[in-house]
Amino acid sequence: MDTEKKTLDVCLTPALIENFNTDDTLIVIIDIVRASSTICTAFYYGADEVLPVADKSKALSYKQQGYLIAGERNGEKLQGFDFGNSPFEFMTTDLEGKKLAITTTNGTQNIEKVSQHLGMNSEIVIGAFVNYKVLLNYLRGSGKNILLVCSGWKGNVSIEDTLFAGKLIDDLNRFNQYTFPTDSANHALLIYEQAKDDIFGFIMDQSMRFKDKISLLGNDIRYCLKEDATNAIPVLTDGKFVNRQEGKGN
Amino acid sequence: MDTEKKTLDVCLTPALIENFNTDDTLIVIIDIVRASSTICTAFYYGADEVLPVADKSKALSYKQQGYLIAGERNGEKLQGFDFGNSPFEFMTTDLEGKKLAITTTNGTQNIEKVSQHLGMNSEIVIGAFVNYKVLLNYLRGSGKNILLVCSGWKGNVSIEDTLFAGKLIDDLNRFNQYTFPTDSANHALLIYEQAKDDIFGFIMDQSMRFKDKISLLGNDIRYCLKEDATNAIPVLTDGKFVNRQEGKGN
Repeated sequence: MDTEKKTLDVCLTPALIENFNTDDTLIVIIDIVRASSTICTAFYYGADEVLPVADKSKALSYKQQGYLIAGERNGEKLQGFDFGNSPFEFMTTDLEGKKLAITTTNGTQNIEKVSQHLGMNSEIVIGAFVNYKVLLNYLRGSGKNILLVCSGWKGNVSIEDTLFAGKLIDDLNRFNQYTFPTDSANHALLIYEQAKDDIFGFIMDQSMRFKDKISLLGNDIRYCLKEDATNAIPVLTDGKFVNRQEGKGN
Repeated sequence: MDTEKKTLDVCLTPALIENFNTDDTLIVIIDIVRASSTICTAFYYGADEVLPVADKSKALSYKQQGYLIAGERNGEKLQGFDFGNSPFEFMTTDLEGKKLAITTTNGTQNIEKVSQHLGMNSEIVIGAFVNYKVLLNYLRGSGKNILLVCSGWKGNVSIEDTLFAGKLIDDLNRFNQYTFPTDSANHALLIYEQAKDDIFGFIMDQSMRFKDKISLLGNDIRYCLKEDATNAIPVLTDGKFVNRQEGKGN
């Protein structure tokens, strides 16, 4: 049977999103350190919905509407919020059946930016090492074009998001044949190939952003690189994430 | 002596230029296939100045002002122009002492975009394999921060520009110690490391853009990868490029 190949592409930073056609596309939002990993963890510990909010005052206002609220800027927990952005804070039974509103330095702004560029028949899902296996199955089963959107760092690229995109491309290509419409997928794949034997060591060696933050972020980063620590499939529906994990949520 | 380290960074596509501080910075414009290589070639064959023009009608109007004019869109030479964008067309004594106005699909738009973001005490120079050795010496001698701006492809990244940036980083780092303010330099360096043993084969293997254009662009690409085929240092001065090559131009 001669079926049309789907496209597999990477947007290396949300600043480039307008270069991409997102019709009939499953869009994977990647912010490994830490928003993607944190959102998956919140669902794994029972959160009922996760509402991404770009503005911190608006996020704070959800407290009065019965939400738990998570807020972070430049790595620090915001005053008045229940949580910061460390995934370890979300490993608590307090989240069971609760709604969570979250605002972070990069991640939630990027979700807003990508949401504004959604094509027809598209969907946004959160991708991380901590939901890798279920995510890969979800992508394989979708039958859609796939666009991996790296959140990057302050408008530019980030090595950990790029290499994660490369890992997904490496595995997706084992099962399906995709076309790569741009050179971005190859950028990601080539970087992943050099990182794959020791991803933690690679990130620490490559990125100036983390070298001086090992004491602050080291444990978080180790967790964020832990494959399949959760089985969450956070999918954006009517502006909020719900968990598409089989047998849970909807 | 404790001198402050300079920064070395890469802007992977001009769409990201606003992320970068360009004060006290030598900016290298990279458009390997083909504008960078073509402009160096035009100077090597004696052109007196090269005026980059984003708009094709405006470029055409320079014909009446005594310029030779080069125009290309999507790989094709534009009607009414003296040259297209193949470097082989510029290997002619017709260029000696002449002014050339040039407009191309990506390259000249990108020069305009970067020019609009010029910081204090900055300079724009053209970089290509065909002027590699003289360019490297020029960068080493500048004592400035260095920003390599890849022209990319249609707003996104391109493998040949990224790997060229990686090659420059690899060599610059042998002589000076730079800081890498973002993750982009490492992206470029990691890709160059995998390409360096066979750059032509790598580009052809990696980029969908070139696979079906080998008969049209193959010879051009081979020339564009030829190190030191020229000794031109095209520097932007008052909106036009002049050749800073020692003993010639100014």
